[in-house]
Formats: sequence, C-alpha cells, structure tokens
Amino acid sequence: MDLEDAIQSCWSRIDNGHVATYIPALAKVEPYQLGVSLYDLKQNNQTGAGSTKIRFAIESISKVITLLYAIEQLGMTTVAGKVETRQTGFASDTILNMEITKETKPLNPFVNSGAILMTSLIKEQDQQSPFEQLLAFTRELCNDNQITLNEEIYHSELRTGDMNRSLAYYLKAKEILQGDVPATLKTYFKQCSMMVTCEDLANLGAALANDGVAPWSGQRLVSSAAATYAKSVMMTTGLYNESGTYSVKIGVPTKSGVGGGLVSAAPNRYGIGIFSPALDQAGNSSAGLALLEVLSRELNLDIFK
Amino acid sequence: MDLEDAIQSCWSRIDNGHVATYIPALAKVEPYQLGVSLYDLKQNNQTGAGSTKIRFAIESISKVITLLYAIEQLGMTTVAGKVETRQTGFASDTILNMEITKETKPLNPFVNSGAILMTSLIKEQDQQSPFEQLLAFTRELCNDNQITLNEEIYHSELRTGDMNRSLAYYLKAKEILQGDVPATLKTYFKQCSMMVTCEDLANLGAALANDGVAPWSGQRLVSSAAATYAKSVMMTTGLYNESGTYSVKIGVPTKSGVGGGLVSAAPNRYGIGIFSPALDQAGNSSAGLALLEVLSRELNLDIFK
Amino acid sequence: MDLEDAIQSCWSRIDNGHVATYIPALAKVEPYQLGVSLYDLKQNNQTGAGSTKIRFAIESISKVITLLYAIEQLGMTTVAGKVETRQTGFASDTILNMEITKETKPLNPFVNSGAILMTSLIKEQDQQSPFEQLLAFTRELCNDNQITLNEEIYHSELRTGDMNRSLAYYLKAKEILQGDVPATLKTYFKQCSMMVTCEDLANLGAALANDGVAPWSGQRLVSSAAATYAKSVMMTTGLYNESGTYSVKIGVPTKSGVGGGLVSAAPNRYGIGIFSPALDQAGNSSAGLALLEVLSRELNLDIFK
Amino acid sequence: MDLEDAIQSCWSRIDNGHVATYIPALAKVEPYQLGVSLYDLKQNNQTGAGSTKIRFAIESISKVITLLYAIEQLGMTTVAGKVETRQTGFASDTILNMEITKETKPLNPFVNSGAILMTSLIKEQDQQSPFEQLLAFTRELCNDNQITLNEEIYHSELRTGDMNRSLAYYLKAKEILQGDVPATLKTYFKQCSMMVTCEDLANLGAALANDGVAPWSGQRLVSSAAATYAKSVMMTTGLYNESGTYSVKIGVPTKSGVGGGLVSAAPNRYGIGIFSPALDQAGNSSAGLALLEVLSRELNLDIFK
Repeated sequence: MDLEDAIQSCWSRIDNGHVATYIPALAKVEPYQLGVSLYDLKQNNQTGAGSTKIRFAIESISKVITLLYAIEQLGMTTVAGKVETRQTGFASDTILNMEITKETKPLNPFVNSGAILMTSLIKEQDQQSPFEQLLAFTRELCNDNQITLNEEIYHSELRTGDMNRSLAYYLKAKEILQGDVPATLKTYFKQCSMMVTCEDLANLGAALANDGVAPWSGQRLVSSAAATYAKSVMMTTGLYNESGTYSVKIGVPTKSGVGGGLVSAAPNRYGIGIFSPALDQAGNSSAGLALLEVLSRELNLDIFK
Repeated sequence: MDLEDAIQSCWSRIDNGHVATYIPALAKVEPYQLGVSLYDLKQNNQTGAGSTKIRFAIESISKVITLLYAIEQLGMTTVAGKVETRQTGFASDTILNMEITKETKPLNPFVNSGAILMTSLIKEQDQQSPFEQLLAFTRELCNDNQITLNEEIYHSELRTGDMNRSLAYYLKAKEILQGDVPATLKTYFKQCSMMVTCEDLANLGAALANDGVAPWSGQRLVSSAAATYAKSVMMTTGLYNESGTYSVKIGVPTKSGVGGGLVSAAPNRYGIGIFSPALDQAGNSSAGLALLEVLSRELNLDIFK
Repeated sequence: MDLEDAIQSCWSRIDNGHVATYIPALAKVEPYQLGVSLYDLKQNNQTGAGSTKIRFAIESISKVITLLYAIEQLGMTTVAGKVETRQTGFASDTILNMEITKETKPLNPFVNSGAILMTSLIKEQDQQSPFEQLLAFTRELCNDNQITLNEEIYHSELRTGDMNRSLAYYLKAKEILQGDVPATLKTYFKQCSMMVTCEDLANLGAALANDGVAPWSGQRLVSSAAATYAKSVMMTTGLYNESGTYSVKIGVPTKSGVGGGLVSAAPNRYGIGIFSPALDQAGNSSAGLALLEVLSRELNLDIFK
Repeated sequence: MDLEDAIQSCWSRIDNGHVATYIPALAKVEPYQLGVSLYDLKQNNQTGAGSTKIRFAIESISKVITLLYAIEQLGMTTVAGKVETRQTGFASDTILNMEITKETKPLNPFVNSGAILMTSLIKEQDQQSPFEQLLAFTRELCNDNQITLNEEIYHSELRTGDMNRSLAYYLKAKEILQGDVPATLKTYFKQCSMMVTCEDLANLGAALANDGVAPWSGQRLVSSAAATYAKSVMMTTGLYNESGTYSVKIGVPTKSGVGGGLVSAAPNRYGIGIFSPALDQAGNSSAGLALLEVLSRELNLDIFK
C-alpha cells in the first residue's frame, strides 16, 4: 500500500482534533502534522511517510515501556500480582472504579494509578536512578540513542500534575504504593517527557510484534510472556476510555499518548509508529487513529478476523 | 495434543467450583462432568473427549447468537449504533456503570442489559416469532437440528428473573428499549434455555473462527464483519467480570454461560466447545477455563502472541 | 404576617419553574397558581391566601402518609428495620447509591425505592385493600372526606411508570420487597393520584407538628414517635436532592410532591400547606419554596435557630 | 436528671467500641473513660459528671470551629458558595460521591474534602498564621485559654495523612482549592490536634445553642446566621456516615471527633460536651452517643418532636 496516499486520505481528520492544552509546551505544537512509520517483520525493513523524523513527547506510551521494564526487573508474577488487566469504564485519571468496588489493585497498568504504581516498582540499580534505567531501556526498545528528556515538558508536567499527586497519595494511603510519592512522580513525569519519533515507535511496536525480539538485531529485548502481556493490555486498555470501541473497529494492539503518538504491534506482522498531535475527545490522535484504521483494513491486521 | 490427557489434568479443578444454584434445574446438574470438542479448520474435522454429547443449558452463550442474528436482520450499523463494546467494571447484571456515567447505550452486548436489548431488536418475520427464528438460527450455527427448548429451565428463569425485569424496565424507562418488556423477556429466557452440546459449541466457534463460513458446508452463515465483531467482544467482555483477566491469560475469544459451557473461536484455526458445570466465583466454568488455558498454550492459540 | 403580601412577594418565582410534563394530566395544569394555608397550633385556627381550595395531585407527599400508616400498622421497630434514614446524593428514582454500597435497605422512605417498599408493607385488612386503607387514613390526617383518586392521573402514572417498575423489581430480586410487584405498584400509583388542597396539607402538617394529635379534634392520629420520625426524615430527605440545601436555608421539616404541593410541620407551632405547580430543577415547587422561606423567616420557624 | 446515673447506665457501651488506632498517640488512650458536661442556658450554669477535666484531641470537632471562623472572616455568602450542605452516602474521607456526580464543590463542610477546603480559606491576618488564629478562636469559643496543640498527635497526623493529601490534591487539580496544599494540610492537622475537655465542648455547644452569643459573657462570638448554619449541618452531617441515623434517633445537632469527643447544641436549651474515646464502626464515640440519647430523651431535646 502507498503510505503517502494513506496520509492524504486521513489529513482532513486533523480538523476534528485539538492539541493537548494542559501544558504550554504541548499547546504550542503545530497540529497539522501526520507521520507514519511501518516496520515490516517479513521483509525486515522500515518504510514511512510524512513527519517520521519529528520528535514529540512520548507521554502515556511510556507506560508500555515502564510496564515492560518492571516485568524485566521484578518478574511477571510480581507485576501481574500488583495490577489488574481490566477496562475501567471511567476516565484514565480518576480513582472512581477502584474506589467504588474497593479494589486493592489499580485496574490496569495504563490508567494513571496503575502506571504510577508500575513506575514506583522500579528500583535504583547499579547506581542508576529509575529514570536513567527507563531512558536506557527506551533507547534500546526504540533503537534510538538520541532519545532525551524534554526539560520544559517535564517541569510543566511537574507543575500541573496535581491529579496524579492525588492518585499517588491515594495509592500510598491504601498501602498499595510503597516508597516515596514525590520521587515516584518525578520519575513518572520524566518518563512522560521523553522525545521520540514515529520511527522509534515503529521499532518498539516491531519488537513487541516479534515476540519480544528486536528484528533489527535478533536480540531478545523482553520475554515472550512480557511481550504477549503488553499486547493484550494494549488491545483492551491502550486507547483510554475508547479502548473497547477500537478493539472492535481496528483490532490491533495499540497504545496512545497525548503527545499525539500511537504505537501498534500487529503480532508477527508489523510494528507501527504514528504521530499526529491533534487529539479527539478521548485523548487519542484523531488523524492517527483514522490512519491506523486504514492500515488495519488494507494490510488485514485485525487479529479478530 | 491428547484431549483425554488434557481433561485429566484439569479434572481436579472441578473441586474449585459450584454449579449454578439460582434455579433448581441447574442446581441438580452433576458437577463432575468435563467435555471438550475441537473443530480443526485446517483438517476440517472434529475431535473430542469427555462429555461431548451431554446436553446443557446454553444460557449466556446464546447472547452471541442473538447478537449475530440481530446483525443479520438489521445490519451492522444499526446494531453497533445501539450498544457499546466496553468492559463495565461491574457484575453483568447491574445497571451501575450505565447509571453512573449516564450512558445512553448498554455498555456491551453481553452484559444482561445489552443482551436483553439485542433480543428486543428481533422482529417477528414470516410469521415466525423471535424465538422461533433464534432457535432455527442456533441450529444452523451449531449444525444440530436436535437443539430444543428446555421448558423446565425456561419456566424457572421466568420465575426468578426479577433482576432482568428490573434491567429491562430501566431500558424501557430510558427509551432505549422499544417494544414490550414481558414479551422480550420471554424470548430472552427461552434463548437461555436451549439445550446444546460441546459439539454444537465447537461448530459455532468454528463458523466464527472461519470468518463466518460454516466449514462443514462452505456456506456463509454470518458476514465477515459480524464474525469479527463477535470475536472482538467475546475477547473483551465474554467472561463476565473476569474478561480482562483472561484476555491476558488465555487470549482466545470466548463466551461462557452459567450452564457450564464455553465457546471459543481461534481465528482461522479452531472452534472449541467445552462443558463443565461447576462455576468459579465469576460464573465461568472452573475446569473449563483451566482446560481452555491448556489448549491455548499447547496449540499456541493466544492471538496476542 | 400578611399571607396575601407574602404570596405577592413570591409570585414572580413561578416564572423560574415549569409544571411537571411526564404525564399529560400534570402538563396541562395552569402554572400561575399559588396558595398557602397556615394552621396555627397556639390559636388553633387555620388562615390562608391564594388558591387554598384548588385540588392537585398529592404525588410524593403521599409518601409521608404511607410511612405513617406502615408505622401504625406494623410498629416503628419493624418499619425502621426495613429502611434507612439517609440522604442519597443522587436523584430520588435511581438505585445508584444502594447498588454502589451494596445496601440491603432503601436509603430512606422518600426515595422511590423506599416509598414503594413502604407501600408494599401495607396489608389487606378487614377486607379493605391497601389503597382503601391509605385513602381513609389520608382523609383522616387531612380532615377532608372529599379526597378522592384522580383516575386520569392514576392511569397516566401506570402507563409511564417504568422506572418505578425497574426499582420495584430490583427490590424484589434482592428479596427486600415481598409480595406482588404489579399489585404494589398499582397501590403506589393510586396513592400518588389522590387530589388534595392546601388546607388538607396544612391539617396534615398541623397533626405532625402537634406530636401526632389532630388539633381540630384532640384525637391522636399517629404516635408521638411516628410523628417525630416523620418530621426528622422530612427535614433530611423531604425535598428530593435539595433536601440538604433547604435544611440549611429554611430549617422546617417539609415534604414536596411534583403536583406542586408542599407540607411543612413546624414543631409545636404550625402546620403549613402550600401549592404552586411550577417546579424547579429538583422537582420542588419554585414559588412554594420561596414562600416557605418567607414564612420561616417571618414566623421564626427555623428549628436550628 | 442525675448525670452520674446517666453515665453509669451507659458505661457498658464502652465495650462495644475501640479507640482509634491509626496513630499511636490515639491508640494508647485508655478506653474506659466517660465524661459529660452540660451547659444549661436557662440557669446559665455548667454541671458535669465523669471525666470532665480530661484533655483529648478535638479532631473532627475542629471542623465546626474552622467553618465558623471562615464565615466570620469571609462572610456567609462566600463560604456557602464554596461548599454544599448534603449528606454524601459514603465515608467521610472518600472523594466518591463528588467524583461520580461531577460536583464542583465538596458536599459539606464536615467531610474531609470540605473541611480541608474550609481550612484553606483562612488567610494570614495581622501577622498571625491561620492556625494561630484558629487556636485563639477556639480558646474564645470554648472559654478556655489552656487549649494547646499536642505536638505528638500533630506529627503523627502529618505522617499518616496520605488520604487527606490525596483529597487536597484532588481539590487543587479541580481548581476548587486555591493556595498551597502542604501549608493547608499542616494547618488542618494542627487544628485536629488541639487538646480540649468536655467542659470546653459544652461551652462551644452553649454558644451555638445561644444563637452565637457566649452565655458566660453575653458577648456575641459568631453571627446568628453562622450559628444556625452550623447547627443545621451538624444535624445532617455531623456524625459521619451515620448522621441520618442519629438525626432520627437523637435529634440534636452534634459533631463528633475520633478523639472521642461530641459537641451538641440544643437550640436555646443546652450546650453539651461528651468524651469517651472508644468509637463505634462509624467513628463516633460509642458510650458517648448512648449517653447523648439518654440526655435527649430525659431532657426532651429532640428538635423534631
């Protein structure tokens, strides 16, 4: 399929969205951008179209990476024992469902409470701070040593992050989160502020689609079980409160971020990275999801078909 | 793999469950039964082990059939416009989430409110009542003309069905459900009281796994889109409030019923029917899910892998 | 104080409200009506102004009467054991709070679920149906033998009462409500359709204010404990979801109905009946509450002062 | 009535309760203590029995004082515009109801979110910190210059106060709470850690019962409107999630604290202070409430009667 054509066919969907405005550094991003990078596992090559080299904030897509790193560091059993894998029925930054049903675990690793908990599990190791480890791991998974922290975004997140503070202290009060809340949140806001490209995300998706093995090197980056677990929760909870809608409509494990990024892993077929910063009401890239729907249909990626 | 061995390895899990007790006809079922039937699409044959010929009440598995029939009769767009495809975070027979979030549609077609709404959509046609049509369609999908209504179970369901009455009148009050509540509930309780076998469910699963085409006849039974839609919502909402847990653990689109049945559709691979009436806390067949987990692992069926 | 002046000062508040529209018989009521009747316990006389003789549907004010009758028939201990006395935080016709907190009792006798439960407690006695007993008791409490059932309103309520059906079947399913749901609802809709005047309600209020003794006859109509209980729950839950607001603002035990009526009982001082059919957003008489606020201030009725 | 007898009759109710254990300084309090102090407005004298001179932590009773001080400093209109006066249906330290119904104000000034908001309203004035002002005001209302901060309790509260931190950051994130969260919480934990006696609370109750005027000096301490407002919200929300139960059972405006204190204001009759540290499940003094029920019955204090 022609990726340039696909981008053209979805370009107007940018009009339906708005860039995130809760921090100035995101609010000033030019909305009329759309890029896609496709890592084809069979041909072991990467193609792309549009804004494939533009860097943007990884935001919630970092939750996939922290989840994988927590599994690598602590083991699947420990991690799976600390978080559920359910949809919540509510916005990702509310404690509502957990509080109503007296749950003792966050409902999944991608709602903010679950993601913050995952971040809190990362321990200092070999004198590397949790964030330093996460950054190194991100570079490895994305095959990109140029990934760095955007200090401006980090400090903005830190300044406006009161709802995440509320969630973290809730977890602390319920003795779910161990360790220091401010330190955990610093790491969390930093992990959200890493700058990536579509190509980076296509690599991440390709490693997940390839059972945890980097197709560019043949090196195993995460266990097969971790990769499968990640793809499953991406499918059921990766697109905020519209995850259920898109598991039917698109059928490809995908995680979004409010920076406008999307990472998809079509098992044994493709890794996909998409970027378009204008978001729909649910917080997912508007043109990005339209483009992903085209790709799913044209490349026959729906895993339920 | 040896299905007899698989059954043996899961037999003790029956001890963890209890047969449904809300109606006498279910409460008196012998718990120590376990059967599996496997329809292999590649070889186009059916194998099985254990109680494959025993008839049991289809219960909530009928929700898959009514959903498919509503799509056939009214079209995908109409049906998808009337129900969402989200997990609820609550028990399947509560109006909680819908009422909290002021949703105007049931959250998915497998919670009771959504299933009752699907049933209400079926219109009399060619002088056949909704249930007569559903029964005929069930026989076709299961390739079994011996499927009949169990009158004892139907009348028990009718007698004890006050929570479903509450849900139906709620939908009526909110002008979501059109038509007559008592008539709809009669059809609903009848559809739950059809008696099927593991083999029937394996056939149903095989048709879904085969993109909607009956592998035994080559005849298309439902559209490709309907089959894909059904498999997706089976994955995300098919196992009551544990759907999220098993989408990670098993990764095969599956729907359960409190009669002890499970139907699974592994896309392009297998249709699976399982029966074991002792249920776990969530209302899913205890030994049945254990067996399905073995099959998923041994036959490499996890679609997220 | 001059009641005519008080009415004039509140007349314009009718503009802020709308008559109930869920049934035609209420929708066609002329909104520009306002009447007040005041039963002064010290002087043992009744004065009034405005539409004091107009009959209107008692609607939810009947919940006070059914509560009192249930206490008379079954005793305080039994009744208090079946219903709580809490505010709900939600609309009066939702099961939300009860379902979230897994309560086994309706939260108070004035939300619909609690009121329907109270109605279900009334037993046939001396060959009199529950409604016949309630009607006779209402006539006694209101000192008015002309009170009758409005058949048009009753049949409209019956036709549109699906949310109450949903609540009643919920209570039945949870084994909270015993007995027949349709029969209970018929009685409930009938009790709501009795036609009363401001004077009737002033009498009812006076009997409650006078510790349960009819001031016009000296006859005890309800026990002191029942009268106290009723006044307390009127204060905390009598004005739908705005009860908390008005317990601060007005401070007089009051129950409203969507027919536009208000009954107040200022302990040992006054019984008050008010009628003005235009309702505010919460379902309380708009001008009626304004008038009650004037009365409370002028007559120094706030029991918290 | 004989207060010593009343104490004896309620002594065994201490067995039903447990002292608060969330901080060591409370956990070590001797449970077998019961004291009552009664300020009779008519006779303008104070009598008592039992542990009337023992100091205990004021805890949530301080919420009444902060509310009154906020009204004095900012005016009734401002304060009433920032908080509702409803029961919540949930525990006092959960954000549940507010989050479900998308309320933009805390539901009342006595749930923790509302109380923290009230504290946040107090501004530095005449170079006095908010807590210094609150302490001075408390001494005035309680007519006791010996009231001081218990540093041990304060530091324990500070250490264990993560749920309150969660609530405060929630309010901050929703832009309901202005100003600094840690500073507000310090003041809040300090106000909870003031040490008072039964006699202090009887004085506080007497001032409220006396329309805001100190009966011991004839000096107005708070406005009539503030006193009425406080008594009303004490009645409807003063006893945690059992407020509705006791508004029926006792009918006297009362606020409790987990230190074991109760303050009651029977309008124009009595101020009452009670202390007994063993708490019931809802967090109210077990023997204390029993004693208050006796007093209400014997002295005919139920304002709904």
